[in-house]
Amino acid sequence: MNWSGGNDREGGDTGRLSTRRLYLDTHHEPIVLLHAECPVARSEGFTARAQVEIHSGGHVALATLYLVRDSLIGVHEIGLSEIVWKRLGTIDGSPVTLRHPKPLRSMSSVRSKVYGHRLGHHALDEILRDIVADRYSDVELAAFVTAFSSQPPEVAEIVALTRAMVDVGDRLSWPNAVVVDKHSVGGIPANRTTPIVVSIAASAGLVIPKTSSRAITSPAGTADAMETMAPIDLDTSAMRRVVEREGGCIVWGGSVRLSPADDILIGVERALDLDSSSQLVASVLSKKAAAGSTHVLLDLPVGPTAKVRSNEDAAELSILIEEVASELGLRVHIVQTDGSQPVGRGVGPALEARDVLAVLRQDHDAPPDLRARSLYLSAALLELAGAASPGLGARLAEEILVDGRALKKFMSICEAQGGFREPPTADLSREIGAPRGGQVASIDNRLLARIAKLAGAPGAKAAGLELHVRTGDLVDRGQPVMTLHAQSRGEMAYALAFARANPQTIAIL
Amino acid sequence: MNWSGGNDREGGDTGRLSTRRLYLDTHHEPIVLLHAECPVARSEGFTARAQVEIHSGGHVALATLYLVRDSLIGVHEIGLSEIVWKRLGTIDGSPVTLRHPKPLRSMSSVRSKVYGHRLGHHALDEILRDIVADRYSDVELAAFVTAFSSQPPEVAEIVALTRAMVDVGDRLSWPNAVVVDKHSVGGIPANRTTPIVVSIAASAGLVIPKTSSRAITSPAGTADAMETMAPIDLDTSAMRRVVEREGGCIVWGGSVRLSPADDILIGVERALDLDSSSQLVASVLSKKAAAGSTHVLLDLPVGPTAKVRSNEDAAELSILIEEVASELGLRVHIVQTDGSQPVGRGVGPALEARDVLAVLRQDHDAPPDLRARSLYLSAALLELAGAASPGLGARLAEEILVDGRALKKFMSICEAQGGFREPPTADLSREIGAPRGGQVASIDNRLLARIAKLAGAPGAKAAGLELHVRTGDLVDRGQPVMTLHAQSRGEMAYALAFARANPQTIAIL
Repeated sequence: MNWSGGNDREGGDTGRLSTRRLYLDTHHEPIVLLHAECPVARSEGFTARAQVEIHSGGHVALATLYLVRDSLIGVHEIGLSEIVWKRLGTIDGSPVTLRHPKPLRSMSSVRSKVYGHRLGHHALDEILRDIVADRYSDVELAAFVTAFSSQPPEVAEIVALTRAMVDVGDRLSWPNAVVVDKHSVGGIPANRTTPIVVSIAASAGLVIPKTSSRAITSPAGTADAMETMAPIDLDTSAMRRVVEREGGCIVWGGSVRLSPADDILIGVERALDLDSSSQLVASVLSKKAAAGSTHVLLDLPVGPTAKVRSNEDAAELSILIEEVASELGLRVHIVQTDGSQPVGRGVGPALEARDVLAVLRQDHDAPPDLRARSLYLSAALLELAGAASPGLGARLAEEILVDGRALKKFMSICEAQGGFREPPTADLSREIGAPRGGQVASIDNRLLARIAKLAGAPGAKAAGLELHVRTGDLVDRGQPVMTLHAQSRGEMAYALAFARANPQTIAIL
Repeated sequence: MNWSGGNDREGGDTGRLSTRRLYLDTHHEPIVLLHAECPVARSEGFTARAQVEIHSGGHVALATLYLVRDSLIGVHEIGLSEIVWKRLGTIDGSPVTLRHPKPLRSMSSVRSKVYGHRLGHHALDEILRDIVADRYSDVELAAFVTAFSSQPPEVAEIVALTRAMVDVGDRLSWPNAVVVDKHSVGGIPANRTTPIVVSIAASAGLVIPKTSSRAITSPAGTADAMETMAPIDLDTSAMRRVVEREGGCIVWGGSVRLSPADDILIGVERALDLDSSSQLVASVLSKKAAAGSTHVLLDLPVGPTAKVRSNEDAAELSILIEEVASELGLRVHIVQTDGSQPVGRGVGPALEARDVLAVLRQDHDAPPDLRARSLYLSAALLELAGAASPGLGARLAEEILVDGRALKKFMSICEAQGGFREPPTADLSREIGAPRGGQVASIDNRLLARIAKLAGAPGAKAAGLELHVRTGDLVDRGQPVMTLHAQSRGEMAYALAFARANPQTIAIL
């Protein structure tokens, strides 16, 4: 017999399976389940943790396969995790076929980087397109991230990476010659300056279309705090209307698809606790470039539990950012701020929103550190964008806050986004007293964030904690150092138990 | 109220869950499922793809968490993949508690390697202990593997890695001063020389306690082929008895836990298609050192579809192996062989075993290439171990084969391992003819392996293929170039369709 004449493709269709949605949330990792006795798995030689290509109608998804030896999955079924389900766009029971995946061409560029070469725009573009199409498995993403961490940063490569990150996502454009933005390179809780800075900048006539993120591992992101005061889930055209009317907005970046590869890469970096300046710079600048910004103020909090830990690191990072930004045609100004403790009193969406409102409303007990930090950043931004002459930004920013223009602008922005509301108050609260008298020696940002999350933040909007002391304060034994806020007794109990077990959260000497 | 006095540990117990075995094969990746509404997940803030620590009785397991929004898992249940199930040693419904895992200390060494430092024995030992305890997630394993690929190999580090790989597993010891071993740095199908070499070496009085592996991605490992002729699943003491009586054995390495980290790392390297000489050398030498070998013959097949692709690569790798082996006190001799096409006729467990028996029995149609390769390796081994003077190994090896001592020794080894049996024959076979007349220009090892696997190898022992031509042969149109063997019509059909669709498997010009 003769083997010519066939026209099956390599690994051609090998029997049909019916789909079963598993309602399985695996974050970005595409996973499918087959029964170990599934004839397709057996005949194709698919073993546990193999990569498979799933075809359905015109759709294709790649996934990691796990095998089940139980009735969880039928032998002629394939169980789909949510991300695979969405990518295929099937309905329960739709027939799919499986194939051995074609090798990912872009992975050869990743290997080349692992072996010490630098990547150009074309290779990075191909890699990032595959990443945002969820074609990269976890191990492949880890290899990419690790490769960037194992080489010293190089400006040309970061520029290429940043451009590729912008290109694989959406891009906003504005008719204005100057479009400003402001970003904090995270790492400390609260620090909710954005709504105040946006209000001051917009009051001064600047255009500041601000997109913010929700919390990923923190007790609240700017979007979470803002959401307790106004709708934030605006699409691009609604956002554009707000900015045209008010000069600024504070919306959630999730509905606008700016630099979508970034979220995926950040997840892997976090899992590995690997930092690379290359990816940090590309992450920040790609979001700004995609948002159509021309002038960007970057706030670099420096402190032992912040992302940037020393002034030397901050200086090195600043030079790199400036060089890359200049290649991209972005004007960037970087300020270093104190990242040793939270800024403001509340930690949690509504509690942070209350701090913001207290500053804008000029309440007598508004957190002075949040007010000062917001004015400092606003001043720098006004000067960077030419709304104030050098050295005069601070006076203008304070004027705008004190004469009530900032509050009025904030309220107008909230109205334009769908209407202002007061942040909610939690049902339960409990004060925690100092276990001893003395001086507050240090505050552990990480433990503080953990307590606020155990109390229910950011899921329960009103939950979190209020911090009543600052480093250097003298306290008496039993004097309230923080107040926990929760919406359920269980969560209050967890937060309380954890706070009690970790008195070093607020170290008193 | 006062927060002192608590003695909960950080992240203390947070409610109990009952276990549910999912019969989910995830290879080495520990995975657990919780319902998204599970109160423990919510209060602890566990999100999809979080790492969690599971406590049950005295047992602890780490796993990656995925969330289910369906009845697949109850809200007070935790679904366990097989590897987690085995590690915890629970029974269905046993209560477990979940915690946030303590950071893996050894990952800081991995990060340090990523950032360009070299690792010493202590750090590598800690890393490998965590790896064999399944404490590393896929992304962490990928970072470790990538870090090794991104630095040039360094002898001191490879020595430390090899020693650490030996130390985390079992170790065999033998009373003999000279214990020999033989290993092929894989990459080409068949090449089943081991049973022949062991029989000749043991006949010449050498001690050769050979452990072999099963197929991972190939159509057959030596252990799979050997299993069609004798039991191979011997524990250490049974293996020792065979070696004491016969001087040699051919058993499955899986029941002896030699260098267990290696299998895990190889899986990740394969997924990434990353090669690192460091890990290749440590992989090979750690298995040999753990097996108690003193003299090791290494066969390096070189060819375009083999693991080692050029003579230059082979030379570089050889120097590295020799330097590391010398530090470890292992005497190693390396021979380069032709890796451009399979050695022997059969591809698949029983078909390869038939080739081995044909050579040992001196059948007139025994594959001459397998005979020649086996004699060549045997000669080198005899000389390396001092059983033959330099230059006289070939004559001795051929004598032992021709006078029947090798066959007799092989049969005695099989008897000692539990009894010889003839390899099975497949129910179905189909010849495939040349699509055209001409000369065989090349044979694609990878496609050939794929066809044998589609036909059912290694699961169906008798399945696979026989190759009837060699590179350079002249063939007529329609002349049989291979015969497929299968145990089921479905598998025969898959293999046939694939073979027809890929005539370049045997390229005829």
